Amino acid sequence: MASGEEVSNKQVVLRDYVSGYLKESDMCMATATITLKVPEGNSKAVLVKNLYLSCDPYIRGHTKSIQGGYADEYFKPGSPIVGYGVAKVLDSGHPDFKKDDLVWGFTGWEEYSLITATESLFKIHHTDVPLSYYTGLLSMPGMTAYTGFYEVCAPKKGEYVFVSSAFGAVGQLVGQLAKLLGCYVVGSAGSKEKVDLLKTKFGFDEAFNYKEEKDYDACLKRYFPEGIDIYFDSVGGKMLDAALLNMRLHGRIAACGMISQYEFDQPEGVHNLFNIITKRVRVEGFMVYDYYHLYPKFLDTMIPYIKEGKIVYEEDITEGLESLPSALVRLFSGKNAGKAVVVVARE
Amino acid sequence: MASGEEVSNKQVVLRDYVSGYLKESDMCMATATITLKVPEGNSKAVLVKNLYLSCDPYIRGHTKSIQGGYADEYFKPGSPIVGYGVAKVLDSGHPDFKKDDLVWGFTGWEEYSLITATESLFKIHHTDVPLSYYTGLLSMPGMTAYTGFYEVCAPKKGEYVFVSSAFGAVGQLVGQLAKLLGCYVVGSAGSKEKVDLLKTKFGFDEAFNYKEEKDYDACLKRYFPEGIDIYFDSVGGKMLDAALLNMRLHGRIAACGMISQYEFDQPEGVHNLFNIITKRVRVEGFMVYDYYHLYPKFLDTMIPYIKEGKIVYEEDITEGLESLPSALVRLFSGKNAGKAVVVVARE
Repeated sequence: MASGEEVSNKQVVLRDYVSGYLKESDMCMATATITLKVPEGNSKAVLVKNLYLSCDPYIRGHTKSIQGGYADEYFKPGSPIVGYGVAKVLDSGHPDFKKDDLVWGFTGWEEYSLITATESLFKIHHTDVPLSYYTGLLSMPGMTAYTGFYEVCAPKKGEYVFVSSAFGAVGQLVGQLAKLLGCYVVGSAGSKEKVDLLKTKFGFDEAFNYKEEKDYDACLKRYFPEGIDIYFDSVGGKMLDAALLNMRLHGRIAACGMISQYEFDQPEGVHNLFNIITKRVRVEGFMVYDYYHLYPKFLDTMIPYIKEGKIVYEEDITEGLESLPSALVRLFSGKNAGKAVVVVARE
Repeated sequence: MASGEEVSNKQVVLRDYVSGYLKESDMCMATATITLKVPEGNSKAVLVKNLYLSCDPYIRGHTKSIQGGYADEYFKPGSPIVGYGVAKVLDSGHPDFKKDDLVWGFTGWEEYSLITATESLFKIHHTDVPLSYYTGLLSMPGMTAYTGFYEVCAPKKGEYVFVSSAFGAVGQLVGQLAKLLGCYVVGSAGSKEKVDLLKTKFGFDEAFNYKEEKDYDACLKRYFPEGIDIYFDSVGGKMLDAALLNMRLHGRIAACGMISQYEFDQPEGVHNLFNIITKRVRVEGFMVYDYYHLYPKFLDTMIPYIKEGKIVYEEDITEGLESLPSALVRLFSGKNAGKAVVVVARE
């Protein structure tokens, strides 16, 4: 297609704010038209063709309208879902991006997007790793793991580290970084297959299937008889409550997400907070956006790790824009088998 | 009395671990005998005559046996309650303390105590301020306020500070230190009289009676339309839950105590923790014991403040060892009118 051409643009639209479990029927396909050119008077925008789109748990948070949800500046009912992706620049009004550049960052769940919020758009320089990695390992989830672990958890060699949602894009990497530092690492996940892979492929010392554990406190005591120094928490709720009972003196909890709570309009109560006083625990919420200035340093660490095989990575790739709703819903079923990526176009 | 003399020793004993509200009848008076000399073979101990004993909310935590209570190394049912006090040394096997020294630190609720845990015993050098201040403003509660505010909250001039239990020994000082730094300070307390004094005597910008507020969230929104940068939390529970809804970006919560929860065997659930992620809030539990190395620096700050009248202080003094149980119970009724101190002996 030629720059400036008006083309049809298939989109995945969320019908309205969602309460309770997210269902595929909360989303629908729509077709709009788009002119493949940055509009006059919007000179800093970038027009892209989306190649790989990413399904991430945080998107569920954007679909809630209740107080305490993520800022919903990214989500408006009736518009295409906003999410991370890898894209190719077709036209640019921004000096940092030019035609044919490959980029990753916030884009839309559609074939073509006009990106105006270019502050979270990154040009891809290293193309000797799979491009799809820039939806996960080398983009927001990877940076979340890296900065959450190193900047928030302040880890030390030999510490006891617990990672929930360990098979997710973030958890996989947190566990591997912790092992590379010399920590003892236990992960929780939602199936036997994931638990096995955590131990055999990702090098976790131990892993358990939380769905088979009735008493999380007893479970954590079994895996951490000496207690937990660092809890990298992506689930919140009952597992957080149990972890609080098992923290060691001066332990740290990085609050990364609360995936167990997203389906509830009123989140479950956490009862064991008194332990943060007796054990002098620091609980710190963080969002990766505050750390994007560290992205070059992150790449300097990660690219060699990937090339040397010190970091491995599992993707769950499906084909076609139409598969996004089912891929997103599958995230919350525990059935995805790695970082969920949808291929919209190969180039 | 002569050193080495055996004398009777009246004591306040806690009968057993307590669940539910603490009552005076959970404690009883007992009489033991004590030899006024450090025993042979226990050369580092100090034998003291107790002068002023301190009632502090944390003692309630020591009387619980449930998981998640404070470490109960200080409390054994049937023994005198262990608490902070000011005392005079009668005999010492410790090189840092000698006969007639005035000291403050962990002692017993009794006339005379043999103190073996001398690591939290401090010699009193400044005697040109009231000795009773060393049960509060210049001892553990004062240090709790000072280190919790400066070391945990990392405050900056102009920030919005909320202090719960603001009329307590710790809260009074936190609010005044925050005002001296140039913060906007609002305190909560349990009576109109306390609320008035917080504003008129202690210089808080605003204060409210939490017992008259039905909706803590609405209340905090009224006093903090711009949100809260720092919450110095001594109460936990529902107020913490409401504060979480009102934290500003990168806010800090110093978890100092959870006085609202001590009567519950199963603490109330806190539901709004997701806000620590969206607002990137740091919640940090602390205990003053970790900061006692800062005591000389603390005195260098506080003694001039007191002498110049920049810090004021309110005590609720009662006479006689026998009044300790009622003074302790009154702490949790909201009826005490300042730092609760019991005079056991004047010298």
